[in-house]
Amino acid sequence: MIEKVNIPEISQKHLHGIKDLTVDDINKILELSNFFKLNNREKDKNYPILKGRTIINLFFEPSTRTLISFEIAAKRLGADVINMNIEGSSLRKGESLQDTANTLGAMNPDLVVIRHGIDNATKQISEILSCPVINAGEGINEHPTQALLDAYTIINNERNLENITVAICGDLEHSRVARSNYYLLKKMKSNVRFVYPEFFKPKDLDKYDVETFTNLEKGITDADIVMMLRIQNERISDMKLPSKESYFEKFGLTYKKLKLAKPDALVLHPGPINRNVEIEDSLADDIDKSVINEQVENGVAVRMACLSIMVK
Amino acid sequence: MIEKVNIPEISQKHLHGIKDLTVDDINKILELSNFFKLNNREKDKNYPILKGRTIINLFFEPSTRTLISFEIAAKRLGADVINMNIEGSSLRKGESLQDTANTLGAMNPDLVVIRHGIDNATKQISEILSCPVINAGEGINEHPTQALLDAYTIINNERNLENITVAICGDLEHSRVARSNYYLLKKMKSNVRFVYPEFFKPKDLDKYDVETFTNLEKGITDADIVMMLRIQNERISDMKLPSKESYFEKFGLTYKKLKLAKPDALVLHPGPINRNVEIEDSLADDIDKSVINEQVENGVAVRMACLSIMVK
Amino acid sequence: MIEKVNIPEISQKHLHGIKDLTVDDINKILELSNFFKLNNREKDKNYPILKGRTIINLFFEPSTRTLISFEIAAKRLGADVINMNIEGSSLRKGESLQDTANTLGAMNPDLVVIRHGIDNATKQISEILSCPVINAGEGINEHPTQALLDAYTIINNERNLENITVAICGDLEHSRVARSNYYLLKKMKSNVRFVYPEFFKPKDLDKYDVETFTNLEKGITDADIVMMLRIQNERISDMKLPSKESYFEKFGLTYKKLKLAKPDALVLHPGPINRNVEIEDSLADDIDKSVINEQVENGVAVRMACLSIMVK
Repeated sequence: MIEKVNIPEISQKHLHGIKDLTVDDINKILELSNFFKLNNREKDKNYPILKGRTIINLFFEPSTRTLISFEIAAKRLGADVINMNIEGSSLRKGESLQDTANTLGAMNPDLVVIRHGIDNATKQISEILSCPVINAGEGINEHPTQALLDAYTIINNERNLENITVAICGDLEHSRVARSNYYLLKKMKSNVRFVYPEFFKPKDLDKYDVETFTNLEKGITDADIVMMLRIQNERISDMKLPSKESYFEKFGLTYKKLKLAKPDALVLHPGPINRNVEIEDSLADDIDKSVINEQVENGVAVRMACLSIMVK
Repeated sequence: MIEKVNIPEISQKHLHGIKDLTVDDINKILELSNFFKLNNREKDKNYPILKGRTIINLFFEPSTRTLISFEIAAKRLGADVINMNIEGSSLRKGESLQDTANTLGAMNPDLVVIRHGIDNATKQISEILSCPVINAGEGINEHPTQALLDAYTIINNERNLENITVAICGDLEHSRVARSNYYLLKKMKSNVRFVYPEFFKPKDLDKYDVETFTNLEKGITDADIVMMLRIQNERISDMKLPSKESYFEKFGLTYKKLKLAKPDALVLHPGPINRNVEIEDSLADDIDKSVINEQVENGVAVRMACLSIMVK
Repeated sequence: MIEKVNIPEISQKHLHGIKDLTVDDINKILELSNFFKLNNREKDKNYPILKGRTIINLFFEPSTRTLISFEIAAKRLGADVINMNIEGSSLRKGESLQDTANTLGAMNPDLVVIRHGIDNATKQISEILSCPVINAGEGINEHPTQALLDAYTIINNERNLENITVAICGDLEHSRVARSNYYLLKKMKSNVRFVYPEFFKPKDLDKYDVETFTNLEKGITDADIVMMLRIQNERISDMKLPSKESYFEKFGLTYKKLKLAKPDALVLHPGPINRNVEIEDSLADDIDKSVINEQVENGVAVRMACLSIMVK
C-alpha cells in the first residue's frame, strides 16, 4: 500500500451510464483511477478499503475480460466477491430478473455489478436492490466503465479531452461502448465522429450530435484518437455481413490508413480484437500507436475507483 | 464486527439432517443465527472466526441460490472457499463419488458442504472424509439448513414454534425441504399438515405423523404458517402434470384462499418461485404476508451459524 | 501459522518443466514442501506471504483436481486468486492465445498458472507476460508439479530417490506426467523403466534413457516404485483400444502382480483413477501399498512451495 487517498463523492447513487454523470463526477473518477494504477504496479496490490463488504458480479452475458477486471478490482480492494455467471437462456425474462434481484438483494450485498443483454436491465434491477449497482455493459445502451477507462487512457497519454477529435469507427449500430464514449467525450468538449459502413448505421443516429462518415479514410483524417469497435457478432442476426476480407479492406484500420490521422494519433480498441478484420495485426501490437493493452490495465484501476466511490 | 459471541457446541459432528438434531441443538443454531443476522446488516460484514480454514462447496446439482448463500456465509467468516460445481453427468456414480471424496479429503478441508441428487450421498461422503460435512440438499431426503432458516424466519416474526399449525403445501412427493421442515417442526411441537394434490402424494407418507389434505383451502384453514413448496420439475419425469393454469387454480396460493388461514398467517416459500403457478404474483411480493425475502436473508445468517458451529 | 520459513531462490524465472531445473532447485522445492505439508495440517492453514499478490489460474483444459489444488495453495498463501476456466473450443488458436495473454498480462498478475492442450503453449504465453508462469500440465510435454509431488511423496515415505528403480507403467505415449517424472528421476539418479503395451509405445522413445518393457509383470519386477498412469482417453482418437477387461488383465496392477515388485514397493497414480482398468479397486485404497491420497495432499504443499518461490 503506497499511501492514503481520499475517496471522493459523486452525484449518483448508481453508475448506470455516463449520461447521468457530471463533468465533476468524471474528473473525480479519473483522478482516483490514477492512484489505483500506481497501486496496481506495486508488489502489494491490496488497498483494502472494502474489507468486510460483499460485491456480487451478476453477469447475464458471458464476458471473460470485463468480469475478471471487476473481480480483480474488488479483490484488490479487500471485498468478498461472488461471481454469478448466468447464461441468458437459463433464466426466463421478466419475473425471473426481478426474483434474482430480490434474492441477491436479500443477501445484503454492498454493491452489485451487472452485465445484461437488454437495455435498462440495470435500472430495473437497481429499483429492487437497496445497494448501488454498476452497469458493466447493457444491451446497446451504455458501458460506462469502458468509456471511463478509455478517457483515462487518453489523458494518461498526455492528451487533453477538450477540443480533440475522436473518430469512433466500425459497428456503431450495436455498440454500447460507442454510446458511453459519445456521452463522455461530448461532456468533456471533444469533437466526436461516428464512422461506420452503411450496414452498421445506428438506428438512433438522430440522438447524437456528431459528424458522420461512411468512409474510414475520411472519417479518421486529422483525428487525434481513432477508436475502433468490435463487431458485435452476438448481437447481429439476420444482417448480411460482407466477408472478413472485404470488411477489412474497407473498414479495417491499417498503418496506411492511419497515416491520414494526426501523426501522434492513438489507436484504441475495447477488445477482444478481431485481428485483420477490425485492425491490422501488427498495428494492434505496435505500442507506439496502439494503447490496447494500456486500456486493459487502466480498466482495473478505473473499476477500483468506481467501486471505491460507489460503495457507501 | 459488532461484538463477540460464543460459538456453542452441538451433539452432531455432521449436519446430515434435522432428524439427528436435538431440540437443544436447534435452539443453539437459531440463537446464533440471530447474531449473524445483525452482523450482516453492518457495513463490515466480516466476522473472521474461520480465518485460515478451508471450506469446499461440493455441488453435484446446479443450485445458484444455495451455493451463493453458503459462499457468502463462508467468506464473511473469513474462510478460504472453494466451489466445485460438478454436473451430475460428468462423474460416474459409485466409485467416482468415493474418489472425489478421497481427493477432496486429502486436501485437508475443514468442512465440506455437499449438494447431491441421491439420498444419503452426504453420509457416504462423510464416511470417507475426516472433516465435518453439511448437507445442502440431498435427493428427496433432507435439506436441513432450509428448515433451520424457515424456523428462524418464523421465530423472527414473533411466532413461537410450539403449538402453531404449519401447512406445508404442494409437491410433497419430491420435497426434501418438506421433510426437513417436518422433522424440525415436530421436534419443536408444532402441528404439521401435508397438503398436496393426489399426484404429489408422498410415497413414504406413512412415516410422517401429520394431518393430510388434498384440498388447499381446507389444508390452510386456520393455519399460522403457510409454507408453499416449489414444484421440483427436475425430479419429475413421467408424471403427467396438469397445466400451469389448472395447477394454479387448484393448488396455487392466492389472496382469496389465504383468507382461510389465520389473519396474521405468514407465507413462506423456499424459492425460486414459479409465479402464478405455486403462488399469486402480487402475494409473493406482499411484505405484509410473505416473508420470502426474509428467508433468503436469514439463510445466510443460519449458514454462518452452522459453519461456525460445525468447523472444529 | 506454525513458524517462519525461508523462501529459497531457484535458477528459473518460470516453471515450464523439470527439464530446466537443477538438482539443487528440485531439492529446495521438496524441502520447502515439507514445511507446507505441516502447515496444512494445522487448524489455521494461512501462511499469507503472498498477501496482496494476484495469481491467475488460466486453464484451457478442464481439470478439477489440479485447478483446485492450485486454488487452495494460492488462497492459503493469502493471494487473490482468479480462475479462468476456458474451454478449448471457445478460443481460436494462434492469435487468441496471444491476445488472452496480452489481456491477462495487462492486469498486473504476479503469477499465471497455465494448463493447455498444446505442447509449449506455456512458453508462448510466458514470452508475452512479464510475470512468472507455472506449467500445470501441457500437451504431452511436461507437468512439473506432478513430478515434484510424486518425488516428495517418495521421499516422505522414507525412500531415497538415488538408485531406486521406478517403473512408470501404462499410457506412456500420451503422458506428460511420465515425461516430467522421467526428467526428475534421472536428475536424481534413479533407474527409470517405461512399461507399456505396444499400442501405447511413446513416439519419442529414443529421447529417453530408460529400460523398456511391454510386459507389466516383467516391468515391475524388483521395482521400488510402481507408478501407474491414467489412460488419457481425451488424447486418444483413432487408436483401437482393447476392452477394459482385457486391458486390466494385461496391464492393470493387481495385488498378485505387485508381489513381483520389492516387498515394500510403493504404488503411485496421478489420478483420477480408472478403477479395475489401471489398478485393482482394493489395491488403490490399500494405504499400506498405495500412496494415492498422500499424493493429493502433498500436491497442495508442493504447489504452495512452487508459488512461494516463483512469485518475486
